Amino acid sequence: MLERYGHGGDLRTAEETFGFPARQFIDFSSNMNPFGPPDGVRRALVHYAEQIDRYPDPAVRGLRTKLAQLHRVDEQSILIGNGAAELIDLVVRALRPAVTALAYPCFTEYGDAVMKTGGSITPIMLSADNDFVLNSSMIDSEADFYMIGSPNNPTGQLVDPALIMKLLYNGATVVVDEAFMDFVPEEESYTLLREAASHERLFVIRSMTKFYAVPGIRLGYMVGAPHKISELRRLQVPWSVNSLAQEIGEAVLEEKEYASRTMNWLLEERPWLIGKLEALGFRVIPGKVNYLLVRLPDIPGLTAAGLQHEMGRMGILIRDASHFIGLDESYCRFAVKLRHQNEWLLEALDRSLSKFREAATR
Amino acid sequence: MLERYGHGGDLRTAEETFGFPARQFIDFSSNMNPFGPPDGVRRALVHYAEQIDRYPDPAVRGLRTKLAQLHRVDEQSILIGNGAAELIDLVVRALRPAVTALAYPCFTEYGDAVMKTGGSITPIMLSADNDFVLNSSMIDSEADFYMIGSPNNPTGQLVDPALIMKLLYNGATVVVDEAFMDFVPEEESYTLLREAASHERLFVIRSMTKFYAVPGIRLGYMVGAPHKISELRRLQVPWSVNSLAQEIGEAVLEEKEYASRTMNWLLEERPWLIGKLEALGFRVIPGKVNYLLVRLPDIPGLTAAGLQHEMGRMGILIRDASHFIGLDESYCRFAVKLRHQNEWLLEALDRSLSKFREAATR
Repeated sequence: MLERYGHGGDLRTAEETFGFPARQFIDFSSNMNPFGPPDGVRRALVHYAEQIDRYPDPAVRGLRTKLAQLHRVDEQSILIGNGAAELIDLVVRALRPAVTALAYPCFTEYGDAVMKTGGSITPIMLSADNDFVLNSSMIDSEADFYMIGSPNNPTGQLVDPALIMKLLYNGATVVVDEAFMDFVPEEESYTLLREAASHERLFVIRSMTKFYAVPGIRLGYMVGAPHKISELRRLQVPWSVNSLAQEIGEAVLEEKEYASRTMNWLLEERPWLIGKLEALGFRVIPGKVNYLLVRLPDIPGLTAAGLQHEMGRMGILIRDASHFIGLDESYCRFAVKLRHQNEWLLEALDRSLSKFREAATR
Repeated sequence: MLERYGHGGDLRTAEETFGFPARQFIDFSSNMNPFGPPDGVRRALVHYAEQIDRYPDPAVRGLRTKLAQLHRVDEQSILIGNGAAELIDLVVRALRPAVTALAYPCFTEYGDAVMKTGGSITPIMLSADNDFVLNSSMIDSEADFYMIGSPNNPTGQLVDPALIMKLLYNGATVVVDEAFMDFVPEEESYTLLREAASHERLFVIRSMTKFYAVPGIRLGYMVGAPHKISELRRLQVPWSVNSLAQEIGEAVLEEKEYASRTMNWLLEERPWLIGKLEALGFRVIPGKVNYLLVRLPDIPGLTAAGLQHEMGRMGILIRDASHFIGLDESYCRFAVKLRHQNEWLLEALDRSLSKFREAATR
């Protein structure tokens, strides 16, 4: 079980489990842009030696200004965080919701953050029958607070903005985690960033580390009504956002070519990989992003943990999705990567499935 | 007033106020090792491009192992934080003390952390008459929780370990902030690190960013009893410590030559600077570290804010210490820097004082 320590932890645990160094794994368990960091990141690193001996700007003014321009919202609506994880934790601590609705399966941190504050959780169970799409008939009227991923992790499914607006209209507070929204070509139709800047019960969280492949350095932001954002900021740890993250955040926003290359790659690669996975017998949830939730082929004895172990021995890490509440041992999650990497994934999956099939017929 | 945003903030605010770029200021307001980051930091930056696209190890295993060896404590006694600031915030949130005693003047974050949790503060006012030393006659028996800097910021004074042990013996919980302890030659006689590893009401916080001049990247750690540390860790934001900080933390622990060069410099430079400041008419609090709290010469109209402004115009930033509770407008704080920098400080102070003297006699 590689997920013991969470992301980053697994790679190290994988080293210990499979006995070869982290760099030699192809990591389909982590949903990063496979192009790796854009050039601006390397340039920022080179210059950073000149700057590391100064405190970060605690107000993160440079990056906030650029994000405000990009999204056409007020600077006072933006809070920068030490990764999206800090912002999830912060918004729950600040608002201390009594009853939080979570639509399972979803990112584990939502529930962890709620439980740290002693709040209660009312689960909405998404169904495989409709590809884990959240719809308004599932909504629980008891909850005063919702944390919703859009696109959702691990399903990749988007949430209809009209549904969010309905929740707000009914008086709830809603946090929408758009950590993977950058990867969605129809981003403009789905994001609630601008709505969040003016609605005091709506908060949108973004990550900058998935799309630009810089999770090591931690960088996320939140958009909300200015007076709410300033309440949250008062609770934040001082100098929470290190200065390299601030520099890199500003640098990557200039990387237009990298962004369009990424979108072109994903538009081509995702359908290709889906087709190949289906040909191997996987059922693929039709998510919209750079990772795929899949149901394993029906082979006696085949489990997500077993497949993860087989693949790990071949140097390929995948996510055992059975650790997500609402999924069972027949689910895995794969990142979409570059063509040659995806071919390795398919090849290793093919070999692993053959092994399980053989074992089943023995 | 440059302190509006806290450290890092001031440098940027100074740019706006005085109209020249941050790099052209000599910053005596921030207490960093003036040698700048050791070579290992630059090497870590070069290699970091290969690693930024992976999540940090959330358990920070590599750095914890090295710190445990260095301090001869159990790894389970160590918690790494996103700067000491995160750990101050975390310990107060986890323990939620009812009544916290703070010995003023002290680092502002202690009180801010307590106020965020709604706890009350009982002040112990240190006195200029005995150079702001904390002694047991000042202790308030009402408090169940103490946060104490040793060496204290801004006074530079150490706290007698026997006093801390007495507080523990009386049933209080004590957090000792040893962020600047690395700079103290008699460190071994004063640190409570090893006691903290086995006492469930004692916590010691260390910073790695002052001594190694890397405040931009955020890195601190705490030592406490293993079961208490694991409680705190559960409240911590996941991946709170970025992977560059982890790398740099491991790298700087190898920098033995840098460490001894730093100690030699400080042993020579501090007494030299104290002598020169006294010759200019300042009263210097006899602190033990790399910064000096000083009382201004008695010149009509001379205030800390006024002196800060005069000095800023000459490109030299100093800390206006009147913002610390328990100090008034006759106090400033200067970092001890390299000889040629200290000479600039003295020259600029001399010129500024002359201006104030002239104005007073006009």
